[in-house]
Amino acid sequence: MITPEIVQEIRQIVGQDYALDSALDLFGYSYDSSFLALFPPSLPELVVRPRTTEEVAQVMKIAYANSIPVTARGAASGRTGGSVPLRGGIVMCLERMTSVIELDEKNMMITVEAGVRTGDIYNLCAQKGLFYPPDPASFKISTIGGNIAEDAGGMRAVKYGVTHNFVMGLEVVLADGRVIKTGGKSIKNVTGYNLTQLFVGSEGTLGIVTKAVLRLLPMPKHRTTLLLMFESLDGACSTIHQMLQAGVVPAAAELMDGKCLVAIARNRPFEYPAAAQACIITEVDGAEQADILKQAEVIEKIAADNGVLEVRTAKSAQEADELWGVRRALSPAVGALAPDRVSEDISVPRNEFPEIVRRISAIAGKYKLNFAVYGHAGDGNLHPSILCDLSDPRQAEVVHKAVDEIFAETLKLGGTLSGEHGIGITKQNYLKNALGEDGVAVLKAIKMALDPKGILNPGKVWAEEGKIHG
Amino acid sequence: MITPEIVQEIRQIVGQDYALDSALDLFGYSYDSSFLALFPPSLPELVVRPRTTEEVAQVMKIAYANSIPVTARGAASGRTGGSVPLRGGIVMCLERMTSVIELDEKNMMITVEAGVRTGDIYNLCAQKGLFYPPDPASFKISTIGGNIAEDAGGMRAVKYGVTHNFVMGLEVVLADGRVIKTGGKSIKNVTGYNLTQLFVGSEGTLGIVTKAVLRLLPMPKHRTTLLLMFESLDGACSTIHQMLQAGVVPAAAELMDGKCLVAIARNRPFEYPAAAQACIITEVDGAEQADILKQAEVIEKIAADNGVLEVRTAKSAQEADELWGVRRALSPAVGALAPDRVSEDISVPRNEFPEIVRRISAIAGKYKLNFAVYGHAGDGNLHPSILCDLSDPRQAEVVHKAVDEIFAETLKLGGTLSGEHGIGITKQNYLKNALGEDGVAVLKAIKMALDPKGILNPGKVWAEEGKIHG
Repeated sequence: MITPEIVQEIRQIVGQDYALDSALDLFGYSYDSSFLALFPPSLPELVVRPRTTEEVAQVMKIAYANSIPVTARGAASGRTGGSVPLRGGIVMCLERMTSVIELDEKNMMITVEAGVRTGDIYNLCAQKGLFYPPDPASFKISTIGGNIAEDAGGMRAVKYGVTHNFVMGLEVVLADGRVIKTGGKSIKNVTGYNLTQLFVGSEGTLGIVTKAVLRLLPMPKHRTTLLLMFESLDGACSTIHQMLQAGVVPAAAELMDGKCLVAIARNRPFEYPAAAQACIITEVDGAEQADILKQAEVIEKIAADNGVLEVRTAKSAQEADELWGVRRALSPAVGALAPDRVSEDISVPRNEFPEIVRRISAIAGKYKLNFAVYGHAGDGNLHPSILCDLSDPRQAEVVHKAVDEIFAETLKLGGTLSGEHGIGITKQNYLKNALGEDGVAVLKAIKMALDPKGILNPGKVWAEEGKIHG
Repeated sequence: MITPEIVQEIRQIVGQDYALDSALDLFGYSYDSSFLALFPPSLPELVVRPRTTEEVAQVMKIAYANSIPVTARGAASGRTGGSVPLRGGIVMCLERMTSVIELDEKNMMITVEAGVRTGDIYNLCAQKGLFYPPDPASFKISTIGGNIAEDAGGMRAVKYGVTHNFVMGLEVVLADGRVIKTGGKSIKNVTGYNLTQLFVGSEGTLGIVTKAVLRLLPMPKHRTTLLLMFESLDGACSTIHQMLQAGVVPAAAELMDGKCLVAIARNRPFEYPAAAQACIITEVDGAEQADILKQAEVIEKIAADNGVLEVRTAKSAQEADELWGVRRALSPAVGALAPDRVSEDISVPRNEFPEIVRRISAIAGKYKLNFAVYGHAGDGNLHPSILCDLSDPRQAEVVHKAVDEIFAETLKLGGTLSGEHGIGITKQNYLKNALGEDGVAVLKAIKMALDPKGILNPGKVWAEEGKIHG
């Protein structure tokens, strides 16, 4: 319960305009891009928009003293409800913390505040010939703080890794308002436990990240983009698998099935062979043009062995942009195919990718469900989307069963519930199956150690007794 | 206090021969490669040598029930006392857990028990054209479990990273004997907190690692080794800095000063220009021979600008081995220069490497101390060695002051206390300076959450009240 006195105290810290409590503001900060239908909606009591770490720390001291839940938020572009204030309280929105503190070209590292947009980091570094690879689909609007909270992935993970591979150090405000720094610019660092990687991906449940030191790479000098059409999904899967086995590690290798192609063609001019049942868009990059061309040749040869129908190679940066435009158009196009879309984010060992695609097709057939399958095939991360109408009770029930079976098959293949979106609200019922009872107990023990009052993003990651979501 | 009944119980679990308590055995398992002079020596009461995870778990249940300290140990090749049983109790030596569970060529991952030697992993993978890069100096004898506990580094870190960059998943026995699995073979995985990276580098204080899934790379097809002699240490430092700036990322770039050259020449045939005050041994590797040669040319050109006296390029694998032999001979040769050697393991942001070398030289001059400086210059990790006689009280006092100043200067430059050896016993008095009081408090809270009775490797990482070491 946030009293008027507490609101007043917080306004004195962040300024009158940066602690919002109008009904409209509270609603505006109550959801994220999962568009979870929560009844009743999870409204915060107060939205706080601090400008500095010190302000975050002072507000946390008040929240701690008064046991007020605090859910950190960036751009709310997350897909699992991570920034939804499930237990009310304060939404701590870091979108005003947009300072780039240092771009250290010599050490190839950048230090930024949590509210800086991922795309802005990419662009700023690119101007200096440096490269920040993680590229979640929302990277143009997502903030780096949100990316760190969810350990966001993206298309380039197959070659370059995900967010956590680039985080060298953090500034974190703890539950009680203390501020710590973790890691730093030393490449080798074994001083104490690896708190940096403990906070990355912890979904705002252990602390609020206010600053980050990110490592950068030299920008690859050359790249080539290919779009390949296949007569079967199996052929496309095998192509990706075989190119990786042949030592061609692409900067991205995106797969989409026939349903996806139909969806895209409804929304934009997009021609493809009538027989096409799958498509790969892939990019190879590197320091030498000759090496890139050699890799492209290997890909074309492997694709030919796997029933490729058509290969388009970008001749210019603009043509590459057009090919990638097909992939970028995908998610909203698939979403428009049905009243509801239940989209998952499973990840399997790379060699099991063709097998999980086959098993998902079998589940779809069994329940007569309309599925679209796409994903980051190069790294084993798949987004199967069930296209349905959840207002139909029969469909709602069947969809639930199908999702259960997808998760079960994923775990059987040595996979995991979430590749890049986090657990948040939507997957917490499945966590015990993935980590075991003792594994979840360890997560809870760490949570209790860092947030004994349970005020940081309560209700997330694991399912609380008697409270079921998803 | 381990009663005869407890010893009997443990012998029933691991077998009569694998729970040792003779005076000789207890002494043999009381020290590591730091050769810390501990008075009285830290003798365990019992040495247990389990064969399976299940045995480790059962012994931990007994230890937990009876509040017996347990210190895990691999080959005891650590440099900071990490495996020294500071509070007695049980030494849990995992050297019999040597099974390679799976070499998964398709996913380029290997699953091993904790007692497998790092060098054996390297060799086994190399036979299949795969590459496990981390190469701590002791890699021929060290176990992977020990490497994981200390997050071991090595010479290849500049290009490939350290142990934690290759650990995908773990099996861990907790303080109370529960067994959990973390991570796995999925490249993208954000299911719950990153426990894998929390256990890596935790020095056996949070759990006992019994199995690990490690990711591998394709073995580089070509490599070239160069040895370069310089007339000044500054010139050698600048060469490394400039080659990295020029985009040449070597597989290793090792620096040694004039004192090191003298030491090596005393122990083996080794000729070098009389004016040489520093030496670099560096290796470039990659998929294309032409590319390697181009990089070697860039290095030679930069070295010429920085006063290089001589460049030797290996013409064969055997010649490369000979050049690396110089580096491998270094540590014992330096150790033989004086009755005692106090060796540190600081790490600084890469661009500060020349500056920290200058500051260490200044500290040596100020205290009239004999110093040798060498290290992994490519990644900012330096091992300054004070050559002294600690039985001389004046020297002992001055050495302490010099070490304090080295750490202070390191932290001022944004560096860290330990690059690859861990904190163990030897550096715990400095931890608060590096992490701050609140940072250390967070480490302790996590320790308390996972090991509430404090039985796992007690007395390590941070200094306990009233107990000072190092």
